[in-house]
Amino acid sequence: MKAAGLPGLDRLRRELRRGELVLDEAVRAAHAGDKWFASALPDAVVFPRDVASVSRVLRWANRARVPVTVRGAGHGYVGGCVPVRRGVVMSLDRWDRIREVHATDFVAVVEPGVRTQALQDAVERRGLYYPPDPASRAECSLGGNIATNAGGPRCLKYGVTRDYVLGLEVVLADGTVTRLGSRTHKNKTGFDLARLFVGSEGMLGVVTEATLKLLPRPPWRASLAAGLSSMREAAALIRRVFASGFLPCALEVADRFTLAAAHRRTGDARLEGCGAVIIVELDGHEKSVRQELATLLRMVSAARPRFVQRAAGPEAVEGLWKLRREFSYALRDTGLTKMNEDIVVPRGQLEALFRLGARLQRNHGFPVACFGHAGDGNIHVNVMVDESVKGYAARRDAALDELFHGVLALGGVITGEHGIGLAKKPWWRDAVPTEARALHGLIKRALDPHGILNPGKFL
Amino acid sequence: MKAAGLPGLDRLRRELRRGELVLDEAVRAAHAGDKWFASALPDAVVFPRDVASVSRVLRWANRARVPVTVRGAGHGYVGGCVPVRRGVVMSLDRWDRIREVHATDFVAVVEPGVRTQALQDAVERRGLYYPPDPASRAECSLGGNIATNAGGPRCLKYGVTRDYVLGLEVVLADGTVTRLGSRTHKNKTGFDLARLFVGSEGMLGVVTEATLKLLPRPPWRASLAAGLSSMREAAALIRRVFASGFLPCALEVADRFTLAAAHRRTGDARLEGCGAVIIVELDGHEKSVRQELATLLRMVSAARPRFVQRAAGPEAVEGLWKLRREFSYALRDTGLTKMNEDIVVPRGQLEALFRLGARLQRNHGFPVACFGHAGDGNIHVNVMVDESVKGYAARRDAALDELFHGVLALGGVITGEHGIGLAKKPWWRDAVPTEARALHGLIKRALDPHGILNPGKFL
Repeated sequence: MKAAGLPGLDRLRRELRRGELVLDEAVRAAHAGDKWFASALPDAVVFPRDVASVSRVLRWANRARVPVTVRGAGHGYVGGCVPVRRGVVMSLDRWDRIREVHATDFVAVVEPGVRTQALQDAVERRGLYYPPDPASRAECSLGGNIATNAGGPRCLKYGVTRDYVLGLEVVLADGTVTRLGSRTHKNKTGFDLARLFVGSEGMLGVVTEATLKLLPRPPWRASLAAGLSSMREAAALIRRVFASGFLPCALEVADRFTLAAAHRRTGDARLEGCGAVIIVELDGHEKSVRQELATLLRMVSAARPRFVQRAAGPEAVEGLWKLRREFSYALRDTGLTKMNEDIVVPRGQLEALFRLGARLQRNHGFPVACFGHAGDGNIHVNVMVDESVKGYAARRDAALDELFHGVLALGGVITGEHGIGLAKKPWWRDAVPTEARALHGLIKRALDPHGILNPGKFL
Repeated sequence: MKAAGLPGLDRLRRELRRGELVLDEAVRAAHAGDKWFASALPDAVVFPRDVASVSRVLRWANRARVPVTVRGAGHGYVGGCVPVRRGVVMSLDRWDRIREVHATDFVAVVEPGVRTQALQDAVERRGLYYPPDPASRAECSLGGNIATNAGGPRCLKYGVTRDYVLGLEVVLADGTVTRLGSRTHKNKTGFDLARLFVGSEGMLGVVTEATLKLLPRPPWRASLAAGLSSMREAAALIRRVFASGFLPCALEVADRFTLAAAHRRTGDARLEGCGAVIIVELDGHEKSVRQELATLLRMVSAARPRFVQRAAGPEAVEGLWKLRREFSYALRDTGLTKMNEDIVVPRGQLEALFRLGARLQRNHGFPVACFGHAGDGNIHVNVMVDESVKGYAARRDAALDELFHGVLALGGVITGEHGIGLAKKPWWRDAVPTEARALHGLIKRALDPHGILNPGKFL
């Protein structure tokens, strides 16, 4: 693998159109990292204008053994698109056209650079629905969502990105262009290869088009926030919600530290002294949702909450989600460096996870703020690092190490929706058994024998 | 690949326990086929008692280059577990223990021989829910469901088997035992390898345990059947149901031929002269479902149906599903040989599919009966072959050929939930582009370099 210099670049330039290959340092610097901490300057950035150019770049790179790291909006949280072995960054950020929205087939065909929310807005205008809703949906791209199998609050009821990928156009490491899957909602033709690429973090191929499943848009929604004295009470209430046969479209939770920060930021007196806040969202037909909201309210009231806030109808619900978004901003306001780890525990282990968070705090001296998707056990555990403290890096690493090992001991996993990237790479070996890692290697070598696709990551 | 004889069998016998290897002809004959037409006598049948034995068999077979065809309940519809290259059939039919049902983690851990309905009954007793419901759920096994990514009516709302597979224990072709996935509802650790095995028809590895996702059991259900004058009216009504924001848990349809046969069988006068019947099922909280059923009834009544039948509550709904099951029995009663093809078209192409069915009937002289999962475009097209007619085989093959090519031309796929097996193998090359077939081959060779797993099928 060539680390720098790239002597074959002239040849690549001759194969591409004017403007597709860029060596300008500012452009390279703008493509060195994502939202995580790491960055690495690529030797070149390519902006392919069509699939033929994507194919040419990969064919060239495969022959010349040059690393190719593909990126969409560059909004990842784990350094997944950092070109750590340099080489070429391939940006599909400008591929932002929605090629088709079909209201009776219930599919959309998109380019990988389309922003998630842009698709959602486009389809909702036509009475359709694309559920996956990562927090960064205004800025992140569907290609990135596919690379990381992105989730979000609504995934509790509706499933993650993978569940909406019906078909893909993929360019393989050697430049072969192939179409996988279909535009039908069901398909059992051969192996499920389209979905093998979902969540593959740019290491198996380059997605150049996706055919996504759409649903009918739920006509109405309502939600409810409740403040509780402790996380234990919150966990018990969450169990009761499920036991009553509710599968809400979202069920979020925030812990004491997060709420205290949000209180400081917003001045919202209700948050003062809360040990936990849960937010439950329901969707469906208006009368049904109103009915269910009333049932839910009775159930929540029986838990003697410190406060309850109802939001009926789409606008009111949006207002309530603002509160949820404040959690993130409030943690930023603390001035501490937030290590946002999207771990998942089995749903019944929520309380144990919050106890683990408290233990981390005691053992390492950094605050630990937990909030996120309680419904599916996918909690964002934020280790709040004070970088002004001497030896903070070693303490941070020790805290993360204890977190990940603790989560694995609970039967959990180290990432639910962000991916491994660079951030989780140190724990890859602990998280996956030897035989399963070997199987990853087999698949990787079969599809990318020279290891040109996003090298330096977890394989 | 040795076709017969199996000189290494003595060695395998020494590695296994008494009773695990069986050469008895009646036992071999009982493991020669499934519910499809083809059969082939294996040289031996193994009944491994544990994972170690599964591993031993595969290690031996991989060295000796002996075909191994794994089977569960043997209830497939496409000849998927027919040992066409003979060798060893490995039966996991007796692995029928539900190892765990966890009511707060919302997971079940099962052996592959557990019958689908046995799991459903076990979890529903505890307020939990496992949605995938293939028609044969009383007899088929979860291992077979995983091999074919089985569906069923409820998959419209709840997704197919794949969407419920969180983790697998898999034995690879060389005998390596590996655990993939997890017991968490979300997981983005590495590639999604567990789900690569879902739908792989026994060609990539042997599943020896599955960790399945469960949902809260919907507290109530209701359904509605409506008879319409034509399939065109039915298709228009289905579009209106979706356009009103309904995502029913099932939306089934049956055509004129099917209904006439059901009328003859049941004497149900309502079915006489119906061009189509649709069945819509809703689930959720009782008050919501009652509300939505009323809305749906208004919508259906506006279409001036020939009859409407409502069923409110689980028992009544079960009664209505009996009608649906009669469709299948009624076709059997005709005395014709039913070629049940589980094709899928994009949801908007339903009418075009029914026109294709009518054309097949005209062109080939066999009745064509269509019924199935209209909601997701997955219609069972039954070519009703009269085997007393001279030259029926050639005419049947021509009809199927026109069916599959017609479906592909509509943007559809040749199988939605049964798999390729032997039944669809002749159309594999037409259904999948060259590059995608090559990718299947790459994956297959990486995982099973000597091609011992279920050889003679679509790869």
